[in-house]
Amino acid sequence: MFSVNIESVSKELQTALQEKINQKTKPLGSLGQLEHLALQIGLIQNTLKPRLNAPHALIFAADHGLADLGLSLYPAEVTAQMVHNFVGGGAAINVFCKANGLELLVVDAGVRADLSTLGGIVHQKIANGTRCALYEPAMSQEECEQALIRGADLVEDIAQKRCNVIAFGEMGIGNTSSAALLMQCLTKIPLALCIGRGTGLDDAGLQHKIAILGQILENYTKDAHALETLANVGGFEIAQMVGAMLKAAEMRMIIVVDGFICTAALLVAHALAPQILDYCVFAHCSDESGHIHALNFLGAKPLLKLGLRLGEGSGAALAYPLLVAAVAFLNNMASFASAGVSKAQ
Amino acid sequence: MFSVNIESVSKELQTALQEKINQKTKPLGSLGQLEHLALQIGLIQNTLKPRLNAPHALIFAADHGLADLGLSLYPAEVTAQMVHNFVGGGAAINVFCKANGLELLVVDAGVRADLSTLGGIVHQKIANGTRCALYEPAMSQEECEQALIRGADLVEDIAQKRCNVIAFGEMGIGNTSSAALLMQCLTKIPLALCIGRGTGLDDAGLQHKIAILGQILENYTKDAHALETLANVGGFEIAQMVGAMLKAAEMRMIIVVDGFICTAALLVAHALAPQILDYCVFAHCSDESGHIHALNFLGAKPLLKLGLRLGEGSGAALAYPLLVAAVAFLNNMASFASAGVSKAQ
Repeated sequence: MFSVNIESVSKELQTALQEKINQKTKPLGSLGQLEHLALQIGLIQNTLKPRLNAPHALIFAADHGLADLGLSLYPAEVTAQMVHNFVGGGAAINVFCKANGLELLVVDAGVRADLSTLGGIVHQKIANGTRCALYEPAMSQEECEQALIRGADLVEDIAQKRCNVIAFGEMGIGNTSSAALLMQCLTKIPLALCIGRGTGLDDAGLQHKIAILGQILENYTKDAHALETLANVGGFEIAQMVGAMLKAAEMRMIIVVDGFICTAALLVAHALAPQILDYCVFAHCSDESGHIHALNFLGAKPLLKLGLRLGEGSGAALAYPLLVAAVAFLNNMASFASAGVSKAQ
Repeated sequence: MFSVNIESVSKELQTALQEKINQKTKPLGSLGQLEHLALQIGLIQNTLKPRLNAPHALIFAADHGLADLGLSLYPAEVTAQMVHNFVGGGAAINVFCKANGLELLVVDAGVRADLSTLGGIVHQKIANGTRCALYEPAMSQEECEQALIRGADLVEDIAQKRCNVIAFGEMGIGNTSSAALLMQCLTKIPLALCIGRGTGLDDAGLQHKIAILGQILENYTKDAHALETLANVGGFEIAQMVGAMLKAAEMRMIIVVDGFICTAALLVAHALAPQILDYCVFAHCSDESGHIHALNFLGAKPLLKLGLRLGEGSGAALAYPLLVAAVAFLNNMASFASAGVSKAQ
């Protein structure tokens, strides 16, 4: 049985951390969001001297039965092709992880292709893609549970390497559809606001997507439990991410949330354990139109807004240097006293 | 006599660069602003394979006669104290340069203290601070010219180290006032929109600042030449930055523009040579309230918006990893063809 026990962060050091930030040689509050980030990381680690250790990016890849309904510009085969591209080092996330010092792990959570002989990835496939939620639940409750456990176990493994910060990402043709459905069910925001153009649908494609996803929603009980919703309309990469995020919070790691699909996974995790938000850093606001509404629902303030809509954890990897900078200023900047600088009059 | 000869970037490779970007294994346009950045850097260097070499951050420090009018929360001595802090490695810009791989140079452009025996800085002081623009021009035309030349010469020196990208920053108590005056004269935006709280003025302090700066403006000819305006209300750190930015563009370097004061310097440079914008990357939108209007005047799209208002080039140093990422994806991502990934249908 999957279960986690997430504690809210202790606020014990909040005053001391804020005072440490305020004593740095800079006008009060002048590092803006970076100050909030430094405070948050200090609280997560419950220390005045936080450290980022062995940062990882995890990409969960899986296919969606939904993809056969023509909801994406790209054919479903692209999921497996992109897994090969990740292994070959040619994708955006490879380049950004290398540039910013993150170790990348690619996870076959349910790609519709036999990747069993492919080296360089983590094999924890639940099935060859989900079923099509238009006709039946995307996965069984057993598969869903299995996915949560696999995701969580992977985070436990990574924790052995002293990793305390994980950037989450995903790959799965059709998964903006799955994410939009999850978002609608979990936030009650009107479906049309949850749906975007994905990899680049035109107006007709977008209308088709809205119509189909509306039909799918009618198949399922409103106000179902979050895990039932996840099984009905989710995906294996999303379900493994949910398990992984929950475990990461339980282990007091920093969760770097990427874009729309990643945030949909977080919505599920949040429904199960709202205190997970204490551990979440929101990397960016995606150009996928539903993302801003999901972020607002969570009260999230993302670090970047660069018009990204690539997925793969690319925005999380791009934002990572800001976490490094936040920790570095907290640990390494001089105070007014130590530097002999006069304070405000 | 100071003069530079800045050429607009060649658009010769624009189509080829855009095509290279479009062939990368990602949905078309899905890297958003990072794609524009990669294109711009390719155009600046006129190559399909740009490189960032020996990145530098330059902080120009100087004092302002204006500071004696009580326009800042901090006493003027803080400028010199912060120069010592830079040398000691304790300021935000030290920490961010170290985190992001930039070499930092601190320039005494006109600090009101004898720093002649201080090692680890570049000595090119024009005078011990400017005069107070409320009573007389801040500097003579000769001093202004000298400052431009010194700034430009420094960039020529740095170019010897094969540097092709410079993050610009400044330190100078009172310099948001000088920058606001420059901005008003050069953009004709109403003065109140050019003035912000600097290091953290309260409402009364802000009203005082608006009143005093309004008085100063009345002393000088509207529509004066940009260099006359620079001499009237500028500062030595700003003037040296203007010269340095112009020279950097002449040498086809990438200019990373920091916050409000840095952008005011760019407004002067832009008035002299509008084509300088081809070379400018705007690091962030500052929380200093005039900055957004100055950015809009220039048609600039900043990379970050984190509520920063620290100066020192801190925002430019924080944004630098995004330049690295842009160049890295352009050079190192696979194409659809090379990775065997199917394209959009």
